[in-house]
Amino acid sequence: MKVDGVHYRTIWLNRDGWGVDILDQTRFPHRFEVVTLRSPGEAARAIRDMQVRGAPLIGATAGYGMALACREDASDAGLDRAEATLAATRPTAYNLAWALRRMREGLRPLSEADRVAAAYRLAGEICDEDVAINEAIGEAGLPLLREIAARKGGAPVRVLTHCNAGWLATVDWGTATAPIYKAHEAGIPLHVWVDETRPRNQGAFLTAWELGRHGVPHSVIVDNAGGHLMQHGEVDIVIVGSDRTTAAGDVCNKIGTYLKALAAHDNGVPFYVALPSPTIDFTIRDGLAEVPIEERSAREVTHIAGRTAQGALVEIQLTPDGSPALNPAFDVTPAHLVSGLITERGLCAASGEAIAALFPERVAA
Amino acid sequence: MKVDGVHYRTIWLNRDGWGVDILDQTRFPHRFEVVTLRSPGEAARAIRDMQVRGAPLIGATAGYGMALACREDASDAGLDRAEATLAATRPTAYNLAWALRRMREGLRPLSEADRVAAAYRLAGEICDEDVAINEAIGEAGLPLLREIAARKGGAPVRVLTHCNAGWLATVDWGTATAPIYKAHEAGIPLHVWVDETRPRNQGAFLTAWELGRHGVPHSVIVDNAGGHLMQHGEVDIVIVGSDRTTAAGDVCNKIGTYLKALAAHDNGVPFYVALPSPTIDFTIRDGLAEVPIEERSAREVTHIAGRTAQGALVEIQLTPDGSPALNPAFDVTPAHLVSGLITERGLCAASGEAIAALFPERVAA
Repeated sequence: MKVDGVHYRTIWLNRDGWGVDILDQTRFPHRFEVVTLRSPGEAARAIRDMQVRGAPLIGATAGYGMALACREDASDAGLDRAEATLAATRPTAYNLAWALRRMREGLRPLSEADRVAAAYRLAGEICDEDVAINEAIGEAGLPLLREIAARKGGAPVRVLTHCNAGWLATVDWGTATAPIYKAHEAGIPLHVWVDETRPRNQGAFLTAWELGRHGVPHSVIVDNAGGHLMQHGEVDIVIVGSDRTTAAGDVCNKIGTYLKALAAHDNGVPFYVALPSPTIDFTIRDGLAEVPIEERSAREVTHIAGRTAQGALVEIQLTPDGSPALNPAFDVTPAHLVSGLITERGLCAASGEAIAALFPERVAA
Repeated sequence: MKVDGVHYRTIWLNRDGWGVDILDQTRFPHRFEVVTLRSPGEAARAIRDMQVRGAPLIGATAGYGMALACREDASDAGLDRAEATLAATRPTAYNLAWALRRMREGLRPLSEADRVAAAYRLAGEICDEDVAINEAIGEAGLPLLREIAARKGGAPVRVLTHCNAGWLATVDWGTATAPIYKAHEAGIPLHVWVDETRPRNQGAFLTAWELGRHGVPHSVIVDNAGGHLMQHGEVDIVIVGSDRTTAAGDVCNKIGTYLKALAAHDNGVPFYVALPSPTIDFTIRDGLAEVPIEERSAREVTHIAGRTAQGALVEIQLTPDGSPALNPAFDVTPAHLVSGLITERGLCAASGEAIAALFPERVAA
């Protein structure tokens, strides 16, 4: 999407033709800096230090990390080494393993001489496919916003979103934001309520930044505020992303998503989940019982980073000394609270039948 | 309650017999400082700058502010001046106006010579009555925790609370915390989930501090986490305070309370509201339609204060430049989501009939 009028992806080839440029997301929203990766080690560090984050973008960075590895040492041993380094950065990231497997399967059959060019081509394909999937999600979700707009006679469509399922988490478009950007492009007036999304504040730090730079009207709200806004008719639709969706339509997403789904249900507000179909896990059905929830460091709750009036980026402690904190990272929204899924193949109900009908080839035998 | 073993109230007479000591709550939880007020102007500043906050404590401070005023100038004109100064500090604080009216009614009939001693006595009464009301709330709520404890065979009773309805908001005991402190005193094992309560973080800054200093086991969680904990059976009861409760039992409280009530309802977790009966507004019934919700400064969302690793207290910006924020301060939880009210006269259902039966003298004719 655009940053103050200039189009960006989150990852692209440097003008030298082989370095890999990324945005350093650790310093968002206060610094906008492009970093060039020139070795598989630098790619691994970018993933591990979360300069890049979001499953699709991690996969794309790993792909280019293997391309950089081929330039250094395209032997089987060299590729093994790079793959091990990259795989160890975020061991639970599903897309990371998937991208590395795809690179391996594409490169191993080739002679060493052919591997560099092929690796860059494969990494580019991973990126382009992600963009195409997300753009298709945008097209699939656009009619939902168009329909609301038609009812509102020119008043902005108010969309609430949680966390960052935006273009910064993907190569472009984002997932939950794709219908928003498509609607903005189509001239539909919008106002996005951006949940700040404690503890890591991906809403305030990333979603607000990308919407603002692209020119989409929005307001940041605390995570506590969305229910009140829904009670007062201030939210027309909720669109969130998903880290993992079960075959029955239960949605695992950033902690707090479930509370917004409850409020949407209580107030008759449509609650949609935008997701690339690879994040549907056809091996499980009951999200609450079967999805293990990562518990992250208490420090994400007790401390937070931001910018002082003097412009310095600092981390401060919020909680009293001696008070422990608990930090579950995700929650599960049961399918019955979800109005529908927005996938690259179109809309479907959050039910086992509807999901199986849309993705028949993926249903376990 | 206790601070590391020493008993404190939030306001008390200095050992000189006339100055008024308070805790400077603006620097909590990182600094614990006692400030002595020696004039009505200092009392007014303490209220305005939120060194003291919470309706009962504001009322008590205003009472002592009038006592300090009598020492300076006990004439009618002097009292009028002091009353006007104090009343202007937090114009919407219900208890502030109530305490000033009570002081006026007690002092005006007296000769100037008698006013100083009477004012100190009246202010002391306001404090003692608040302590008695809150202690009664604690006694009323204690059986709820005792009953859960009896079912759990020694495992801690896990209480979730939102915001700070603690002793720091009152003169002592607090409202939502009073049953917790009573249970702790009775030897019932407890673990309190403390919602940090964005944007002003009264949970993380105040509730965690007071529970920790008094020795009550607790963990700070982000406001997003409570629903997930309830889904997994990690919350036995929710107890929150209330700024205003309607005659029909709708509860206006800190923003985000409604989301926790929805989650409690969805998971069969009892959801109780502890409140001193003066906060019941018998003139209204429909909280959603009739309670105006204060919209506070966006800066409370976009900025936050805390302590650097070097020990300095600083304020930092969280959101990107140019991103607006919206900051509704309260929400309304409909009575049907409330399991019961804990008042100084005992428990009652959150219904018009039950409230009227418990407070017959206050029902409008």
